[in-house]
Amino acid sequence: MVGLDNFFNAKKIAIVGVSKEPNKVGHVIFRNLIDSNFKGKIFVVNKNADTILNYKSYPSLTHIKEKIDLVIIAVPAEFVIGIIHDCYKTKVHHVVIITSGFSEIGNYKLENKLRDLMNKYRIKCVGVNGLGVFDAYTKLDTLFLPRYRLQRPKEGGISFVCQSGAVGSTILDLGTEQGYGFSKFISYGNATNVDESDLIDYLGNDEKTKVICLYVEGIKNGRKFIEIAKKVSKKKPIIALKGGITEEGSKATLSHTGSLAGAANVYMGIFKQCNIIKADSLQDMFNYARILEKSIRPMGSKVQVITNGGGFGILSTDAIINNELKMAELNKDTKNRLTKIFPKIVIISNPMDLVGDADTNRYKLAIEACIEDNNIDVLLIILLYQTPLITTDVIDVITEINDLKKKPIIVVSTGGEFTEVLKKNLEMNGVPTFTFPEDAVKSIKQLVNYYESKS
Amino acid sequence: MVGLDNFFNAKKIAIVGVSKEPNKVGHVIFRNLIDSNFKGKIFVVNKNADTILNYKSYPSLTHIKEKIDLVIIAVPAEFVIGIIHDCYKTKVHHVVIITSGFSEIGNYKLENKLRDLMNKYRIKCVGVNGLGVFDAYTKLDTLFLPRYRLQRPKEGGISFVCQSGAVGSTILDLGTEQGYGFSKFISYGNATNVDESDLIDYLGNDEKTKVICLYVEGIKNGRKFIEIAKKVSKKKPIIALKGGITEEGSKATLSHTGSLAGAANVYMGIFKQCNIIKADSLQDMFNYARILEKSIRPMGSKVQVITNGGGFGILSTDAIINNELKMAELNKDTKNRLTKIFPKIVIISNPMDLVGDADTNRYKLAIEACIEDNNIDVLLIILLYQTPLITTDVIDVITEINDLKKKPIIVVSTGGEFTEVLKKNLEMNGVPTFTFPEDAVKSIKQLVNYYESKS
Repeated sequence: MVGLDNFFNAKKIAIVGVSKEPNKVGHVIFRNLIDSNFKGKIFVVNKNADTILNYKSYPSLTHIKEKIDLVIIAVPAEFVIGIIHDCYKTKVHHVVIITSGFSEIGNYKLENKLRDLMNKYRIKCVGVNGLGVFDAYTKLDTLFLPRYRLQRPKEGGISFVCQSGAVGSTILDLGTEQGYGFSKFISYGNATNVDESDLIDYLGNDEKTKVICLYVEGIKNGRKFIEIAKKVSKKKPIIALKGGITEEGSKATLSHTGSLAGAANVYMGIFKQCNIIKADSLQDMFNYARILEKSIRPMGSKVQVITNGGGFGILSTDAIINNELKMAELNKDTKNRLTKIFPKIVIISNPMDLVGDADTNRYKLAIEACIEDNNIDVLLIILLYQTPLITTDVIDVITEINDLKKKPIIVVSTGGEFTEVLKKNLEMNGVPTFTFPEDAVKSIKQLVNYYESKS
Repeated sequence: MVGLDNFFNAKKIAIVGVSKEPNKVGHVIFRNLIDSNFKGKIFVVNKNADTILNYKSYPSLTHIKEKIDLVIIAVPAEFVIGIIHDCYKTKVHHVVIITSGFSEIGNYKLENKLRDLMNKYRIKCVGVNGLGVFDAYTKLDTLFLPRYRLQRPKEGGISFVCQSGAVGSTILDLGTEQGYGFSKFISYGNATNVDESDLIDYLGNDEKTKVICLYVEGIKNGRKFIEIAKKVSKKKPIIALKGGITEEGSKATLSHTGSLAGAANVYMGIFKQCNIIKADSLQDMFNYARILEKSIRPMGSKVQVITNGGGFGILSTDAIINNELKMAELNKDTKNRLTKIFPKIVIISNPMDLVGDADTNRYKLAIEACIEDNNIDVLLIILLYQTPLITTDVIDVITEINDLKKKPIIVVSTGGEFTEVLKKNLEMNGVPTFTFPEDAVKSIKQLVNYYESKS
């Protein structure tokens, strides 16, 4: 059987359809691959050019003497079939087809023909009508979006299987800005012969993937999906956002990826059955991915809030109760310990209000005490950087305690430029951070739920 | 009757309790006032110093020969009463008391004594135990938070009445970063003799305030609040977030601002009765403020989506239906007009998918056509900047159409650094912008609801 590994670990890549025009899709992909520090070898196919960006241009795949692992196809739809014949001749079994103009515009005939041919030749295809793949580790990158407009993320544990190129790539971009780490991103478009289930199956076995995100409009094969998702969700969390959950939205999916969106309740039933975490919005998915990638397993649902702003403690408490989590009750020992060292104005309770003049050391003492308190399962730290006594080494303090991996630690910081810089630093150091307490708590709920339902 | 105008428009301000220590509250306030370009005159009271930052220091208020409009008090709690006597002697009727250590730590006796004295002297007080006030127009600024940690916003239409200093100041900071414009911010702490109702009443008559945000833990006088809020919400939207909505959260409010939070359903009933827009989270409040400040009145609830990413069109559609708004149906004329000028690949429907190769001109044509279509009440534009053909002058195109004030225009852009720069520019130009489609739609719902229930 032909696996999917070459989509991410190909050493020799050929791009078919590289124009000399710098704005054309094939050219942008080629340029991005060069710029991405991709370690493998790149071949360019364009019969009308001798060289492109100082690379030799081959008239066709069959002229390349080396064995190609992956072919990226960016030619007009009517020429794709011809390229597939060349792939067969050169023993290529993996293609990424960026080209659109198939079932999504009603051209089922051409897509069916293409599928039959690829299946006959045992060629696996990511696409058609997708952005293709991005791997943060190998730097394999077929996204035809300029790097100054779409940042590429650092290495990490989130993989994203995405039926919409726009949804996936913008989230990749936003996540990069906020310090997320990614493993693999796949925009699989029409899923001509590799579908979401195949990709989830692959990612389930990928050691670098800690959490799988899925944006799906229509699942191709429900039975296959259930079987695979059930198996994979036992190993790692799958977060799914379903596009076209309403009748009106469902109509729109048909012209987007040629998907029959299907009834919402059927999908919700499938997600539940497979222990898939359902995201109700793009933001939810984004938030859940952040916490599920970084957090260790919580031992229960008792949350302790530590804050330097009273209102935030109250809003967090409301959110904890509304999300059916529990407010931890501090151990007597913890209370005694902290009463001895804290000034009277500190409220040693839950929420624990370190008040506005809290400095980094007060946070350190509070967090250290709570980490050792068996009544506490999860630590929600509100860290408002606006007050002058919080020094920036609070980042190191929290990172060091978080690195001990004793309990999930989640940090909320709300603010402008100064806050954002520190928040991103903490996120890059492996601590999930949020702007708003309610989002943080909602995400903690998913974290607790996932591990509870797994056990 | 003593009005509240001096809290925002005072020309001569005295700060009592300015230490020479640069980290102390009084000193930070003084320094911030100097740095803020406050146009009025500042007096400093500290009997242990001759000069502070080259300003003459007075031994007491009574030594200042000029008439003071507003006194900012930042001395320990036990000295506050003495200062109030001095205020009386010098005919001061407005004080901002930053000092804490009153009812919020159980010291009801001192706060009651203070209140009685101020009422006797006809002195109005913002505080105690609050951050005080900030006015973006007059630059009057009592926030004791360093400007590099807490950015001060540009002039605009949002005013924020906030019982929690932390909640208010962080939102001010975050809003500044995202291009929000503010009018007034008041952190009124324990509401010793000026409460949320007084402030809402004042802001209702303030021409510069377009929308009022309220974070409240406990309303002091329900009947007064209802009377005032009912009146003001007819003039401009009031958005309220209630802290301590759960029993557990309510307990926490007692030690925060000494508030009895009261039953959630009572509050929700009051909000509904007064046509107050209820925010369920800090993020909701933040989002609703953005749209309600900037948007004109929509004529109905029919939303047209324009996008360059199909998945976003679908998620927006789902959100529109889930929020009980309506999907607009394009007029025949609009369809014909656009069919003539757009390439076949564009989906002229709702959502209107301009597809990935859309350039600025395609957006211009689409928006212009939709602005003139009577079947459309609100325009939701998904503008993903990752694709290479969108030039940055799309900002000018949208701003110019938005400035005609024909229909509310809301823009969603998801992404990293490049996106954020352009998004902020659009926001600064008066167009409400969102990162996620679901947040945008939820906020459009509030906009439509407010004007519907007002009429």
